Amino acid sequence: MKIEKVGLFGKFNDSSVSETLDAVRKIIEQQGLSVLIAETTAPSVQGPRIDTSQPVEEQIDLGIVVGGDGTMLNAARMLAEHDLPAIGVNLGRLGFLTDITVDDFDTALQSIRQGRYRKELRTLLRTTVLRDGETVYTGVSLNDAVISKGNSGRLIEFETRVNGQFVSHTRSDGVIVATPTGSTAYSLSAGGPIIYPNLSVFSMAPICPHTLSNRPIVLDEDAVIEISELYCPEVHANLVLDGVLTCELNGTETVRLEKSLKKLCLIRIESHNHFETLHDKLGWNG
Amino acid sequence: MKIEKVGLFGKFNDSSVSETLDAVRKIIEQQGLSVLIAETTAPSVQGPRIDTSQPVEEQIDLGIVVGGDGTMLNAARMLAEHDLPAIGVNLGRLGFLTDITVDDFDTALQSIRQGRYRKELRTLLRTTVLRDGETVYTGVSLNDAVISKGNSGRLIEFETRVNGQFVSHTRSDGVIVATPTGSTAYSLSAGGPIIYPNLSVFSMAPICPHTLSNRPIVLDEDAVIEISELYCPEVHANLVLDGVLTCELNGTETVRLEKSLKKLCLIRIESHNHFETLHDKLGWNG
Amino acid sequence: MKIEKVGLFGKFNDSSVSETLDAVRKIIEQQGLSVLIAETTAPSVQGPRIDTSQPVEEQIDLGIVVGGDGTMLNAARMLAEHDLPAIGVNLGRLGFLTDITVDDFDTALQSIRQGRYRKELRTLLRTTVLRDGETVYTGVSLNDAVISKGNSGRLIEFETRVNGQFVSHTRSDGVIVATPTGSTAYSLSAGGPIIYPNLSVFSMAPICPHTLSNRPIVLDEDAVIEISELYCPEVHANLVLDGVLTCELNGTETVRLEKSLKKLCLIRIESHNHFETLHDKLGWNG
Amino acid sequence: MKIEKVGLFGKFNDSSVSETLDAVRKIIEQQGLSVLIAETTAPSVQGPRIDTSQPVEEQIDLGIVVGGDGTMLNAARMLAEHDLPAIGVNLGRLGFLTDITVDDFDTALQSIRQGRYRKELRTLLRTTVLRDGETVYTGVSLNDAVISKGNSGRLIEFETRVNGQFVSHTRSDGVIVATPTGSTAYSLSAGGPIIYPNLSVFSMAPICPHTLSNRPIVLDEDAVIEISELYCPEVHANLVLDGVLTCELNGTETVRLEKSLKKLCLIRIESHNHFETLHDKLGWNG
Repeated sequence: MKIEKVGLFGKFNDSSVSETLDAVRKIIEQQGLSVLIAETTAPSVQGPRIDTSQPVEEQIDLGIVVGGDGTMLNAARMLAEHDLPAIGVNLGRLGFLTDITVDDFDTALQSIRQGRYRKELRTLLRTTVLRDGETVYTGVSLNDAVISKGNSGRLIEFETRVNGQFVSHTRSDGVIVATPTGSTAYSLSAGGPIIYPNLSVFSMAPICPHTLSNRPIVLDEDAVIEISELYCPEVHANLVLDGVLTCELNGTETVRLEKSLKKLCLIRIESHNHFETLHDKLGWNG
Repeated sequence: MKIEKVGLFGKFNDSSVSETLDAVRKIIEQQGLSVLIAETTAPSVQGPRIDTSQPVEEQIDLGIVVGGDGTMLNAARMLAEHDLPAIGVNLGRLGFLTDITVDDFDTALQSIRQGRYRKELRTLLRTTVLRDGETVYTGVSLNDAVISKGNSGRLIEFETRVNGQFVSHTRSDGVIVATPTGSTAYSLSAGGPIIYPNLSVFSMAPICPHTLSNRPIVLDEDAVIEISELYCPEVHANLVLDGVLTCELNGTETVRLEKSLKKLCLIRIESHNHFETLHDKLGWNG
Repeated sequence: MKIEKVGLFGKFNDSSVSETLDAVRKIIEQQGLSVLIAETTAPSVQGPRIDTSQPVEEQIDLGIVVGGDGTMLNAARMLAEHDLPAIGVNLGRLGFLTDITVDDFDTALQSIRQGRYRKELRTLLRTTVLRDGETVYTGVSLNDAVISKGNSGRLIEFETRVNGQFVSHTRSDGVIVATPTGSTAYSLSAGGPIIYPNLSVFSMAPICPHTLSNRPIVLDEDAVIEISELYCPEVHANLVLDGVLTCELNGTETVRLEKSLKKLCLIRIESHNHFETLHDKLGWNG
Repeated sequence: MKIEKVGLFGKFNDSSVSETLDAVRKIIEQQGLSVLIAETTAPSVQGPRIDTSQPVEEQIDLGIVVGGDGTMLNAARMLAEHDLPAIGVNLGRLGFLTDITVDDFDTALQSIRQGRYRKELRTLLRTTVLRDGETVYTGVSLNDAVISKGNSGRLIEFETRVNGQFVSHTRSDGVIVATPTGSTAYSLSAGGPIIYPNLSVFSMAPICPHTLSNRPIVLDEDAVIEISELYCPEVHANLVLDGVLTCELNGTETVRLEKSLKKLCLIRIESHNHFETLHDKLGWNG
C-alpha cells in the first residue's frame, strides 16, 4: 500500500478538535508525507484542502480519520467511493472504527507504512427510493438504513420482501437494516445481534414491533430487501441513513436496500482485536 | 349502580360503524333506557347528543363504548373525569377494554342491570409540562405517556427523577410511562412487562436505549416521575398521550408524570377473565 | 428500635472473611453492645453463638449481616421468621441488600442507634409443594422461587393458574417467580422488569419460552400462583429457592407460590438511595 | 439426482405413526422405487431395514424423513455423514425441515424425480470435548450445541475464545451455539436472531446472562469457538446436542465447536419459501 499523500478527516462543525488535528498533521508531515485536509472538516483547521471538484483518488492515497465513529461514518462513504483506505484515530474515547489513540498514532503509522497492518473490508449499504418505478433518491451508508415513523405518536405499517419473496407485514416504530459494522450501533439497541465485522450479511430488525414474534433476521448481503406498502397516517415517515434523516416518505414509495458495490477498506494495526473493543464499549468486564 | 340514562360512544371519524351503533342503541332503548350519543361519535350516527356545555354526569349514568380499545381510550378520559362508569363493546375483534360482543350485548346489559357485574378501577396518568416552573400543558391518558424523538434520526437524551431522586441519564428513542392498562399496548413492544390491571403501579420503559442495562422499571403509582434536561438536537421531541401527539418539547421543559386523581370505573360481566384476553390477543394458544 | 444484643451473620463455608467479621464485632462491642455469632457463620469466626434450639428473638435484637447479597438471603429468612430487623454490611463490593461498607459501619451503626434510619419491609415468598393434596415441602425465599428443567436437554411444560384462573400452558426452560427484592437478580437476566423494592407485587417470568409472546407478568403479592401439570420427560424438574435446589419435582405436584406472612425489615441509613445502587450495579453510568 | 433406493426414516419409539409410514412407503413403491426402513425407526413399522454394519450409501440413494423437525435432526446427522440427501414429510404440523404434507407427497416425489427441486445445503456443527488435550467426546448436530448448567440452582461461568481470541468471561445459565437451521429453535427463545438458512455463519447466544450487555453474536462458520475455564459449582454442567444430553462436563474440559466437514443436502420442492414457514410457525399473520 502506497502512503505518500494523506487526506486528513476531522469533525464537521467542531473547532474544539483543531489542536488535535494539527498535532496529527504534524506527525504525518514529520514522517515525510504530504497532507490535505478534507473539505468537510471544521474550517478552523488550517492547511490546504482536498479539491472535491477534481478526482480525489489522485490527490490522496488514503484517509486518516480523527474523531469518533460518527466522524468515520461520514469519511467512509467518500473514501469507499474512491477506493481509498481509511485509518481511524480516536480523540480519547475508543471507537469501533477509530481504535488508535493520538498518543499511539506516530508509532502506529510507522508500523502501517512498514507493512505491518491488516485490511478489513466493510460492506456498505445502498438505499434507493423509488416512486412509480422512478428513482427519487439514492444514498450509501456504513452503519444502517432506518425507515421510521416521523413526527407521530402512531405505529407505521409496511411490507417487506427479500429477493421478491414476501417476508412480513409489520406494524412497528420502523425497521433497521444494518451492516455488520452497524450491528453494534442502533440495531443493538433494538435487539439485533452483534455481527462479526467481516461477515457478508445484513441484519434486519424491527423497532418495537406490535407482533412480539417479529424478531431480527440475518440475511445474505447479496439479498435485495424491499420495503413497500408503507402506511404512515397523518405524517410522512423517514428514511435515515447512518443517523441522518435523508428522505421523507409519503407511503407511495418502494425503498430498496442492497449492498453497495464499493467496500470500505479499513487499515488496522496488527494487534487490533474486535472482541477487546466489544468488551470495552459494552462493559463486559463486569 | 343506577342505569337509566346511557351515553353511547362510538368511533370518531368513522361512519362505517353507524349501523352497529344503531343496533346497540335499539337494544338499550328496548330495555327501557334512554340514550344520548357522545359528541365525538361520527356525525352519521343519528340521535340526540350529549351537551358538553352542561354537566355530563347529570345527562348520563354511564357510558357504553362501542369500538376497539382506541375508542375506549378517548371515552375513558371523559367518563373518568365525570366519575361515570364504562362498559366496552367490541366490533368483532376482542379488545382488552372492549370485551363484550355485539351479539352478547343484550344479555350482558341485562345481567349488569341485575347487579351481576364486577367493577375494575383503572388508574389514569396525569402529565404536566412545565417551562420555567409554569404549567404550559396538562393532559390525562389511560394507556401511556411517551416522550419520544420527533422528526429526527438521532437519539434524545434526558434525565429521570422519581420523587426527586435521580434515576438515570438516558440516551434512547424515548421513554414510555404506562399504566397497568397500557402495559399490553406500546410498552409491551418496547420490552415492558404485562401488569395485572388492578395493580397500583406504573411501568417506565426506555425505547431502544443506548445502554443495554437500562431496563423497564415498575414504580408505585404514587410516585412522581420527572423527565428533564431533555436534549433533542435540531428538532423538537414529542409528548404523546395514548398515541396522540399532544405537545412539542424543545428541551427546556420538565415533564411531570403522576397518577390522575380520577380513576376509570370499568364494568365487567362476571365471567370476564383477563388472562383469557391475554391468551387471545397475544397468541398464547400456540 | 432497641439495639442491645446483636446477632452477627457471616458467610457460611468461608473462613477468609473471619478478619473482617472480627473487626465488625469489635466495632459493635466498642459501642457497648453484646454480640452473638449466627450458627451458620464459618466456624473460624470466634465468639459465642446463637443457640437455635432456643427462641432466637430472646437472644438478639437484630441481625448485622456481613457479606454479599447471598449472605443476606440466608440470614433474611431466619431473621424475618423471628421478626428481627437486619442491617447489611458489604465486603467491598456494593450489594442491593448490603450497602454499608465496613469503613462506614461504625458511624452508620451510631446513626442507626440514634434513630436516624429508614425501615424497608421486604416481601418474602412462601412455596408449597403438594402431592395428591398433601404438602410434601414448604420453604421461604427472599429473592425468588424457580421451577426449572433439571438435568435435561429438553424444555419442560407446565400450566399456570393465578387465584384459580388459568393463565397459560408454557413450554420453556422454567419459570421465575420473583419478589421486588429478587427482581434485580435472576429474573432480570430472564427479561423480567426491575421492581421498586417497596411494591406489593410479584413478577413471573418464563425462562427462554418457546412461545415468544410469553412475557413477564407483574401480579399482586396477594395472588396465589399455582404451577401444575408439569411435564418433564426422562428426568425430574427442580424447585430452586434463592438459588438453592430444594426439591425435585416428578410432575405429579402442584407448586403453590404466595407471599409469606412474615416480612423482612431492612434497616437503611437515611442517605440510602435505591437508584444509586441500580446505577452502580447495572453500569448505568455509561 | 438418482432416486431408485429410498431410505425411510420415522420416529423412534413411537408406533402411532406406523400407519402413516406404511402409506408413505406404498406411495414410494408405487412409483417403482425400493424402500429400506431406517434402523432407528419404531419397530412396529414393517419392512426390510437398512443394515448399518454395511456402507449405507450403497443401500440407499436418499432419505425420506417422516415426522417433525425432531425426527429430521436424528436422520440428518446420519444422512449427512454418508453424503445422502433428505426429503422431509410432516405428520400434519408444518416443520421448518419437514414441509411436505403426506397428502402432497405423491405429487411432490414425482416432481422431484422429474428434476423440479432445489437443493439446500445446511451446515452441521461438530463439537469436540477435550480433557488435558485428549478428545474424550465428539458429536455432530444440525440445530445447536448447548453448554448449560446441570442439576443446579446456580449460574455457571466460562470463558469463550474465537479463533484463539478471548471473547468473554460469561456468567449465565449456559450458551447456545446454533447453525442457521437451529436459529429458529432454542436459540430464538434465548434471544438469538433468525438466520436465513443458507448463510455460512453460526450464532452464539448466552442463556440468561448475568451481564445484560452479553448479547448474541453472529460468527463466520469457519470460526473455531472454544469454551473453557468452566466453573459449575457442586454439580457437572451439560453438553446438549440437538436437545440430547450427550456429555457431562466437570469443568476441566475445553469444548471446541466448529463446522462439520459434511453438510446436509435438503431437497425442497420448487415452491418452498422459508419466509412462509416463518410466518406460519411464528404466528406472524397476526
